[in-house]
Amino acid sequence: MDIEDTLLMIPGPVKVAPRVLRAMSKPMISHRSPEFGAIYADCRELLGKFFETKNEIVIMSGSGTCGMDAAVGGLVGRDDKILTITNGKFGERFTEIGNRYGKSISVDFEWGTPFDPERIESAMEEGVRAIAMVHNETSVGIINPAREIGKIARKHDAIFIVDGISSIGGNEFLTDEWGIDIAITGSQKCLAVPPGLAVVSVSQRAMDALRDNSGSYYADLKAHIKSARKKPAQTPFTPAVPLFYALQEALHMAEEEGFDARRERVRRLAQAVREAATALNIEMFPVKGKFSDYSNTVTAMKIPNGITDDKLRGGMKKQGIVVSGGQSQLKGKIFRIGTMGVCSQGDILRTIQTLELILAREGVITRQGTGVEAACKVLDS
Amino acid sequence: MDIEDTLLMIPGPVKVAPRVLRAMSKPMISHRSPEFGAIYADCRELLGKFFETKNEIVIMSGSGTCGMDAAVGGLVGRDDKILTITNGKFGERFTEIGNRYGKSISVDFEWGTPFDPERIESAMEEGVRAIAMVHNETSVGIINPAREIGKIARKHDAIFIVDGISSIGGNEFLTDEWGIDIAITGSQKCLAVPPGLAVVSVSQRAMDALRDNSGSYYADLKAHIKSARKKPAQTPFTPAVPLFYALQEALHMAEEEGFDARRERVRRLAQAVREAATALNIEMFPVKGKFSDYSNTVTAMKIPNGITDDKLRGGMKKQGIVVSGGQSQLKGKIFRIGTMGVCSQGDILRTIQTLELILAREGVITRQGTGVEAACKVLDS
Repeated sequence: MDIEDTLLMIPGPVKVAPRVLRAMSKPMISHRSPEFGAIYADCRELLGKFFETKNEIVIMSGSGTCGMDAAVGGLVGRDDKILTITNGKFGERFTEIGNRYGKSISVDFEWGTPFDPERIESAMEEGVRAIAMVHNETSVGIINPAREIGKIARKHDAIFIVDGISSIGGNEFLTDEWGIDIAITGSQKCLAVPPGLAVVSVSQRAMDALRDNSGSYYADLKAHIKSARKKPAQTPFTPAVPLFYALQEALHMAEEEGFDARRERVRRLAQAVREAATALNIEMFPVKGKFSDYSNTVTAMKIPNGITDDKLRGGMKKQGIVVSGGQSQLKGKIFRIGTMGVCSQGDILRTIQTLELILAREGVITRQGTGVEAACKVLDS
Repeated sequence: MDIEDTLLMIPGPVKVAPRVLRAMSKPMISHRSPEFGAIYADCRELLGKFFETKNEIVIMSGSGTCGMDAAVGGLVGRDDKILTITNGKFGERFTEIGNRYGKSISVDFEWGTPFDPERIESAMEEGVRAIAMVHNETSVGIINPAREIGKIARKHDAIFIVDGISSIGGNEFLTDEWGIDIAITGSQKCLAVPPGLAVVSVSQRAMDALRDNSGSYYADLKAHIKSARKKPAQTPFTPAVPLFYALQEALHMAEEEGFDARRERVRRLAQAVREAATALNIEMFPVKGKFSDYSNTVTAMKIPNGITDDKLRGGMKKQGIVVSGGQSQLKGKIFRIGTMGVCSQGDILRTIQTLELILAREGVITRQGTGVEAACKVLDS
């Protein structure tokens, strides 16, 4: 495998545009300089459009989990309760983080199945400080109903935390309209930046609720907000400077394309994958519901009968296409294709073509071309 | 200021070699792939030489503070005590982190003055789990006595944590010989990599002492060790992939130069700065002691009479040389020059020359050239 000749189709890290990669090779600057402050300020402004929010935005040097840690740790002290909702790996991560600092009341649904808002509301207890959910559950390819859960949070006066890590900038994600107090994304998803930055938006309501000296010292949301508001804008600890260069460049690329146009492109790419899968008799893994839908940023499909995970993904990798398998209990049962960021029509067609090649080789399908044809219909429409 | 024509002489982030910057522009890879695992394994092995240790090494995606947070948070639970020693900003950070998760017993010395081992030992109480100190206090340019404090830690059966962030790979730093259970560095210092990675070495003794589900969720040392030991080597959360590319390249550069040769070069550069300062009647800020010395990675000097911080550093910056000021209560009182990583003789001479230019312009010195001459004597010897 030569990494410069490999197409990365996993749901993060995603393919990064060459101009964004090149932006990282500028020399270092002092992180306390006006030059760094200007980059940070520019990113904060453009990210507001990505998040569809007027809330405060901070950038942390760490993965998306660092942002989840900051949100939960800042709100949940030793005697506090948080309601967490799970139907996949990352929802379960919220439960773990809540239990690290306080107590999680976890409302669990089978992986890949829809939330039931009634069951969630009935689990609310007196004094629950926050509700945390994952909007786009990367592990199973489902979109969960943030708008509906947001109403429950507001009714019970709980801070509403949404992991939008693989969603923001790909799926529709209306931070302000849905009443999301803390929204989180990671650089390596729809922003199409290398991994290493978490972006967190924080409402005034959430800021007022943040506890002092709570949670992780490094992932301290209050400290990050305080530093971001300085002139020049700063971070409390030394930031990953090259990733800020990359983020700024990637945000300018997204602005050039148009934030709405980008989301529409991503939606169409995912639809093409789904149509191709249907044409190839490959089943979707997640279950659609009244308030839940298939993700536009990651498509999770069952591995067809007649082929193993190893043969499917291993075979594709030998052809230069990297797709993801299932996590935890879904290992060997599903495979996942990401369609975020700067993923192109050509990337999708090459991926489907290669998938067909491998399926045909193993005798799972007899005729190649039906998947690509179905995808083309969507992409060309 | 054009950042591509500016010489960064601050004590981190430091100048990064072009081949290290270029290494970051490779495409992304999956962080769960054998390809990533091979990079991580290679880095872990070479870092052992940098740290002079056979201990386990993990790399975290975050600043050096993330590593400090992981060390203290992993050991210090709600009812635990940690002894912290301070004579500058970063020692005080240990105190803050200790108080975040448990209770710090802080032994404080005036900023820039030597530790008194007797006073430190007499502050030890029953049940103190760990002692934390900074080896090279970046804020004041002093080297603190790790060997001596290590003996106290061992005698009292406390885990010994040393912040070697601006030290390891620059000053002499003997992790195993000095009995350092947890040593920490950051990528943007002597490793000459962009900021964004923390490297932590952990002894078996420290691993046995780490508490479960303790401290920060993101900066969880136990989780990082567990993932690093997997085959292929992994990180618990998505790592900052380009910084791993850069780290690997920088470690290979250091290996080519020779780890000992690099430390000797850095020592000589700092000595040149000190000799130049003496020739220019500029006073060192830190106070040398029986067990304390001037740092070889950052030289902290008093701002001479007759010039302000603004004029000194602002004037140098206009000439394309960025040096640091003082932090917190030392703002306006000292300035600092870093000599880590791939800093060259030419960089030092250009810096001193520019310093002389500014001092002469403000009438602080009457004749230029004496600083450069003094530095050359050291560099040419």
